Amino acid sequence: MRQLLLGTAFLAVTAPAALAAPVSRFTLDNGLEVVVIEDHRAPVAVQMMWYKVGAADEPPGHSGIAHFFEHLMFKATDDLAAGEFSRIVEAQGGNDNAFTSWDYTAYYQRVAADRLDLMMTIEADRMRDLQLTDDVVATERNVILEERNQRTDSDPRSLFQEQTRAAQYLNHPYGVPVIGWRHEIEALNRRDAEAFYKTYYAPNNAVLVVAGDVTPDAVRAMAETHYGPLQPTADLPPRLRPQEPPQLAERRITMADARVSQPYMMRTYLAPKRESGNQKEAAALLYLAELLGGSGTTSLFAKGLQFQDPKAVYSYAFYDGTAVDSGTFGFGLVPLPGVNPEAAEAAMDQIVADFLKSGPDPAAFERIRTQLRASEIYGRDDAQGLAQRYGEALTVGLTLQDIEDWPKVLQEVTPDDVMAAARKVLDRRNAVTGWLMDTDEEAAQ
Amino acid sequence: MRQLLLGTAFLAVTAPAALAAPVSRFTLDNGLEVVVIEDHRAPVAVQMMWYKVGAADEPPGHSGIAHFFEHLMFKATDDLAAGEFSRIVEAQGGNDNAFTSWDYTAYYQRVAADRLDLMMTIEADRMRDLQLTDDVVATERNVILEERNQRTDSDPRSLFQEQTRAAQYLNHPYGVPVIGWRHEIEALNRRDAEAFYKTYYAPNNAVLVVAGDVTPDAVRAMAETHYGPLQPTADLPPRLRPQEPPQLAERRITMADARVSQPYMMRTYLAPKRESGNQKEAAALLYLAELLGGSGTTSLFAKGLQFQDPKAVYSYAFYDGTAVDSGTFGFGLVPLPGVNPEAAEAAMDQIVADFLKSGPDPAAFERIRTQLRASEIYGRDDAQGLAQRYGEALTVGLTLQDIEDWPKVLQEVTPDDVMAAARKVLDRRNAVTGWLMDTDEEAAQ
Repeated sequence: MRQLLLGTAFLAVTAPAALAAPVSRFTLDNGLEVVVIEDHRAPVAVQMMWYKVGAADEPPGHSGIAHFFEHLMFKATDDLAAGEFSRIVEAQGGNDNAFTSWDYTAYYQRVAADRLDLMMTIEADRMRDLQLTDDVVATERNVILEERNQRTDSDPRSLFQEQTRAAQYLNHPYGVPVIGWRHEIEALNRRDAEAFYKTYYAPNNAVLVVAGDVTPDAVRAMAETHYGPLQPTADLPPRLRPQEPPQLAERRITMADARVSQPYMMRTYLAPKRESGNQKEAAALLYLAELLGGSGTTSLFAKGLQFQDPKAVYSYAFYDGTAVDSGTFGFGLVPLPGVNPEAAEAAMDQIVADFLKSGPDPAAFERIRTQLRASEIYGRDDAQGLAQRYGEALTVGLTLQDIEDWPKVLQEVTPDDVMAAARKVLDRRNAVTGWLMDTDEEAAQ
Repeated sequence: MRQLLLGTAFLAVTAPAALAAPVSRFTLDNGLEVVVIEDHRAPVAVQMMWYKVGAADEPPGHSGIAHFFEHLMFKATDDLAAGEFSRIVEAQGGNDNAFTSWDYTAYYQRVAADRLDLMMTIEADRMRDLQLTDDVVATERNVILEERNQRTDSDPRSLFQEQTRAAQYLNHPYGVPVIGWRHEIEALNRRDAEAFYKTYYAPNNAVLVVAGDVTPDAVRAMAETHYGPLQPTADLPPRLRPQEPPQLAERRITMADARVSQPYMMRTYLAPKRESGNQKEAAALLYLAELLGGSGTTSLFAKGLQFQDPKAVYSYAFYDGTAVDSGTFGFGLVPLPGVNPEAAEAAMDQIVADFLKSGPDPAAFERIRTQLRASEIYGRDDAQGLAQRYGEALTVGLTLQDIEDWPKVLQEVTPDDVMAAARKVLDRRNAVTGWLMDTDEEAAQ
C-alpha cells in the first residue's frame, strides 16, 4: 500500500520539450495502450503491465480478490508451470514482482534489453491463459491468509490504519483493505476468481509501459506479435464506484492494543485528486504536505513539535492524490514519552491553525519549490521509477499531457494556491482522527 | 425507518397451543409463501405483501432504489393508471400504504373482508406488470429528492443518525440510508429500476400475510387465482451481504449544526440478531434495553439521570434484532440545559458500569417480564400489528416456529442471560458514540 509523498504523487519530467523525444505511445487494435520511455544509458529494459483493476473495483463482499491475482498470476498457464514465470526471469538474470492498490494491479520485470521479447511472450501468455484449479486457489488462499497474519493482524499499526481507513469512507470502496477482510479472503473461490480474471485481465483494460534501452518501433513490433492476438473483453464494465455522500462530522477512533509500545496519531481528510487537465489544487496540496510535515527538520511540525517545544518524537504529513476517485491528505505524530496525547494533538492543531492564519514562510516555500524541481531531475535517472509514474498516472485516468504538464504545474504553484487548497481540505467534517494506544494508556484517558 | 423497542422486536403470540388454530401457512407452486391469521371479531381484512428486498440488497452506488419502488408501485401497470391503485382502495372504504427498511419492502391494504379478492387482483397486477417509463421515473425521482429534503436534509437529528449509522458499519450495507444518498438518488434511472423490479418483485421473493375475518381455504383459493399465474424469478440471487470485519475501535462523532436546539447523544453497538432456533440472546437484549432505558420512569437511566441526580431531560435505550444480519443495541440522552455533555455521558456510562457489576434488580426484572407478557396479549388484538410481526419475522429469515416460540423464550429469560448478553454486547470496540450539538456548543468543547 502506498504511503509516500513525493514517490508516487510527483511525476518525473521537466518540460514538454525534454519529454517529446523519449516518450511515445500507441494503442493496439485490441485496446492495449503502450507507452515507451527510451533511456539508452544502460542496456536494460523494464516491462510493466498495469491492469486498471484494484481493490476498489472488487465486487462487494469479495475484498482481496484483486490482490489475490497478484499471487495467482504466478501460477500455471496453458504454457507455463506454476512458478515457471519467475524462474525464467531469474534465469535470464532479471527480477520481477507485482503490486496491488485500490486502483490498479501491476506486474513488472527488469531484464537485459535483449530479453524483452521473451518477457512479452510470458506476460502475454498469463494475461488470458491462466489455468485456475480449485487446488491452486485453495493453496494460494492460505498463503494470503498467512500474509494477512504477518502484515496486518500481527501489526497493531496496520490494523489501526485499516480501521481508520474504513471509517474515512462512508460509502466509497476505498474503505476496503487491499489485502481484503479476513472473512472475505476465506470465502474467495475459483468461480469468483475466474469471473474476475476473464473480465479484467484483458488488453483493453491494461497499460503496458516499457522503459529503458528500447526503441518505439521495436517495442511496437514485439507488442503486436505477443499482445496483438489477445482478445479484448467485450463488455468491460465502466469504472464507476459508489461516491461519498457529504461527510458532516469528524470521526474519532481510539484503538487500544497491548502490543503497542508508543501511542501513534493519524488524521486523514478526504482531498481532491489530481484532476486531468486541472492539477493545480493537487500540486498545491503537495506543497502543503511538505510545508506542514515534509521529511527533514524544516517543516512546521518538525520545528514546532520536535524542537521548539518538544511534544513529539516524530511527525509527518502526506498527500496522495493520484487516484481514480478522491485522494487523502493526512498528518500525525508519535508523542514524546510522558507527553499527554491530547496535549500533543492540540499542539499539532495549533500549528495548523497558525499556518492557516499566517500562510507559508516565503523561504520555506521556495525551498520546497526547488526540492520538487530537483526531485524531478533525479527521478529521470531511474527508468523503473519513471515507468511506475507513467503507469500509475495513466491507469487512474490521467493523460500523457497531464504527466508532461505536471512539473510545470508544480513550479507554478503560488502561496495563495496553497492557502486556498488548505482552507478547503482541512475541514474536520471530512476527517478521521485516530489514536493507537497501548491498553494501559487508553484506560488512563 | 424502524427505531422502536417493543414494537417490532416483540412478537405477538403467547403459546404454541393458542397459536395453532388461527395461523396457517402454505406456499404456492410459484414460490409465494402465504400466511393467514384468522381474527373473526370484525369483518375486516388486512393484506400485506412483503418483498424480501430492502436497502441492504441494493447494488452498491444505487442506494435508495428499494425505497424508490415503494413509490413506483403506485404508478401505472398494464391494467391500472397511475394512482388508481390507492383510489380503488379508498373507494372501497379501505386504506393502504407501504414502507421500506434495510431488509424488506412491504405494501398493505386494510379493507372490509369481502373486498379481499379485489385487493389481491390489484396487488397481483403490480407485482409483475408495472409499466415504467423515463417520465415516470424522472418525476418520482424528484418527489423522492423532495422527501429527502423534508425528512433528512432539513432535520439535523436525521442527518446525524445517517452519519452515525454509516460509521457503525465498516463493510455491511446496513450503513446505507434507506432513503438513499442524495447523489445516488439523483442518478437512479429507468434501466436500473427495471432490472431491480424484474429480479426482486416476484412471487418467490415475497411473503403474503392476510389477517382478519378470513379463512385459510378462501385465502388459498383467491391467492391461487390471482397470484398463482405469476412467473417466479428463475435466477433469484442469494441474500448474501458483505459482513462486518472485527471492529477494533469505537468511533466517536461530534456533529455540529446551527439548527440544533438541544444536544443529543446516541451510542449504538453491533448486536446479535434474533437467530432462528436460538432466540434467547435476542430476548435477553430486549430485557437489557428495558432495564437500562425502557419507557416510563423506572428504568436505570430514567432513575439515575432524570431523577436522582438530574443530568438529562430524556434518556432511552433500544434493541433492534429482527434483521437478516446483525442488529443494533443502543442508548442515549438529551442533557439538561447547562449540563456538560461529557458529564452527562460519563453519568450514563457509570450507570452501565454499575449495572454490569450488580446485575438487575429482581423486582424490575419481574416487572419487565410481566410487561412483555401483557404487551403480547394486547398485541393479539390488532390484526394489522400481528400481520406486521409475522411478515417482518418471516421476511428476515425467521420461521413460524420461531414466531410461535418467541413469547415463551421471552418469559424464560433469566437475569443471568441478560448479564451474559450485556457483557458480550456492551463492548465499546463495536460502538459508535455520536453527539449532535449546535455550532456554539461544539466550538466550546
